Amino acid sequence: MEIINKTCFLISPEDTSWRVQARERLEQLTMPHWALGRLMDLGIDLAGITRSMSPETRRKVIVVMAADHGVVVEGVSKFPQDVTWQMVANFIHRGAGINALAGQPGADVRVVDMGVAKGVNDLAKSGAVISMSVGQGTANIANGPAMTREMAVTAVENGIRVARSLLIDEKYDLIGVGEMGIGNTTPSSAIIAAISGESVETVTGHGTGIDDKQRQHKILVIERALQVNRVDVLDGIDVLSKLGGFEIGGIAGVILGAASLQKPVLIDGLISTAGALIAQLIAPHSVEYMISAHRSVEKGHQIALHCLGKVPLLDLNLRLGEGTGAALAMNLVDAAVRILTEVKTFAEAQVSEAAG
Amino acid sequence: MEIINKTCFLISPEDTSWRVQARERLEQLTMPHWALGRLMDLGIDLAGITRSMSPETRRKVIVVMAADHGVVVEGVSKFPQDVTWQMVANFIHRGAGINALAGQPGADVRVVDMGVAKGVNDLAKSGAVISMSVGQGTANIANGPAMTREMAVTAVENGIRVARSLLIDEKYDLIGVGEMGIGNTTPSSAIIAAISGESVETVTGHGTGIDDKQRQHKILVIERALQVNRVDVLDGIDVLSKLGGFEIGGIAGVILGAASLQKPVLIDGLISTAGALIAQLIAPHSVEYMISAHRSVEKGHQIALHCLGKVPLLDLNLRLGEGTGAALAMNLVDAAVRILTEVKTFAEAQVSEAAG
Repeated sequence: MEIINKTCFLISPEDTSWRVQARERLEQLTMPHWALGRLMDLGIDLAGITRSMSPETRRKVIVVMAADHGVVVEGVSKFPQDVTWQMVANFIHRGAGINALAGQPGADVRVVDMGVAKGVNDLAKSGAVISMSVGQGTANIANGPAMTREMAVTAVENGIRVARSLLIDEKYDLIGVGEMGIGNTTPSSAIIAAISGESVETVTGHGTGIDDKQRQHKILVIERALQVNRVDVLDGIDVLSKLGGFEIGGIAGVILGAASLQKPVLIDGLISTAGALIAQLIAPHSVEYMISAHRSVEKGHQIALHCLGKVPLLDLNLRLGEGTGAALAMNLVDAAVRILTEVKTFAEAQVSEAAG
Repeated sequence: MEIINKTCFLISPEDTSWRVQARERLEQLTMPHWALGRLMDLGIDLAGITRSMSPETRRKVIVVMAADHGVVVEGVSKFPQDVTWQMVANFIHRGAGINALAGQPGADVRVVDMGVAKGVNDLAKSGAVISMSVGQGTANIANGPAMTREMAVTAVENGIRVARSLLIDEKYDLIGVGEMGIGNTTPSSAIIAAISGESVETVTGHGTGIDDKQRQHKILVIERALQVNRVDVLDGIDVLSKLGGFEIGGIAGVILGAASLQKPVLIDGLISTAGALIAQLIAPHSVEYMISAHRSVEKGHQIALHCLGKVPLLDLNLRLGEGTGAALAMNLVDAAVRILTEVKTFAEAQVSEAAG
């Protein structure tokens, strides 16, 4: 818990003076007032997060946290558990959606084994996968806690370690969080139901494509998980240990690590946002360092975003995860920085201002 | 009219066989079915437009069509007319919003003088601005037609010339259309009201930032323009000549030119979409080559998009024009191509498929 405590201690609110300075410049640019809308809002956020009028976002990375879930024995997913490690291999061989979409804005992809059931030792040994495994998949949350409290702490701390390694040692400027884990919409929906107070029905979607009958079954499984595991919704580690996944804890840790280093972190879809809710419980100010990349098709996502107070940048009917939405939104972060740093003011460009 | 006729003759529907082939591949990619949603829809469109499973989009250009509008004497804009040429100079000196946002996806910016009131001869002579001027600003549409029918034909044909020059001679793969012209939301709203059949009240917004009282006045001006100019809403050239702007005609021409060469064209905000409506009237199949980049804050934009049958990719509260939304959406076009060309199928990646 020491690493988490030290990290939280470093997470301060965004800097208001930098926000004010950014707003003042953006209001003077050669265009009608605030005509680039949400990109200008984002520019203010980036100035406040990085304490800079020219936030650095050049070096980009998508962190894909992978882990397995005991709850898959309840039949909550259309895909077999083996797909988790098969997709980890696919990421490494650059054949997955995230490889294509991270490449577009020039982001690297880093895959982290947070607890894949079938070990991915070969890939870890070769250095292709970062090994931070907390266990070979969680226990079945329909019968009891997903993991011990100690494991939950380790998952979050491993996420912090990953963030520090990427942002300090490897000098990345901008992180996006993604994940892979067959069955992981189930713990994510459980976490979102617990924290939001909404009904399981309201937050549970079709995941990888289950039909309505399978979704009804998934709802019952999540309701059982919430009954069996009485969570303390003010304690992020408790929620994570009882309902979570190792990758969800890892994502929470990456967010906390980024926030402690005053770097922006792009949040992807349902599972990443469940991780963001855990981070918010652990360190409320971490929310100010989060940028919501997109609105997922998954039902619970909008509710989770509401709990974070975030409006997503993109809405493209995505429901893949892996960090794909975060990768797409990296371009918008770059665009916001360019508006802040490249567009001239009326005075600089000698353009007449609006009347009255 | 000969160039328009020849161009329209070359505009055929998207190729269904390429669309089918793209869909078949996208359905086999290593992800839940259609999990990248609108980007996969876009991938199909791009395959159908370009007749290719690996559509080329590398060389990108934003065409900014600039012109002035006689209707500004009615007090419909907050900015003085001089801002049109001042902004043309700003584009050339790389200080405007479009310079920053086109640079992000690596697009060039080409500025075309379609009819700026104060000549921009110096810039045209130096080659910085493409000179296609049809006149020094339109006449006041509140009193009569914006231009003669011959001028409308010339405006569209000049747009076609620009598209052919960029796509053939300069080998660009992807065009986005933008514009600059103080007062040009007024003719655009008039065109959209005429073609959609909606009330002027419904399609008229706050432009560069006029207040509610000024907007009421703008509505009256547009209503007068529609009364004075009885347009034939089945004749794109008639609508353009009576209500249009030179840059709106130029945009229609660029779209027709791109469609005739089977290249995708990104449509920006309110004014670009008014140009797209003119193109649609002239050659209905040109719509199949248009990609709607974003939903503008301007009220009439959504109605214009509905007439085109388009759902925009982005919704970021933009209302700048210049092609800024089109530039942002270029990344999504690139992303769609990468999904089509880089992501492996289940068979290729040896990943297990979903059950039943």
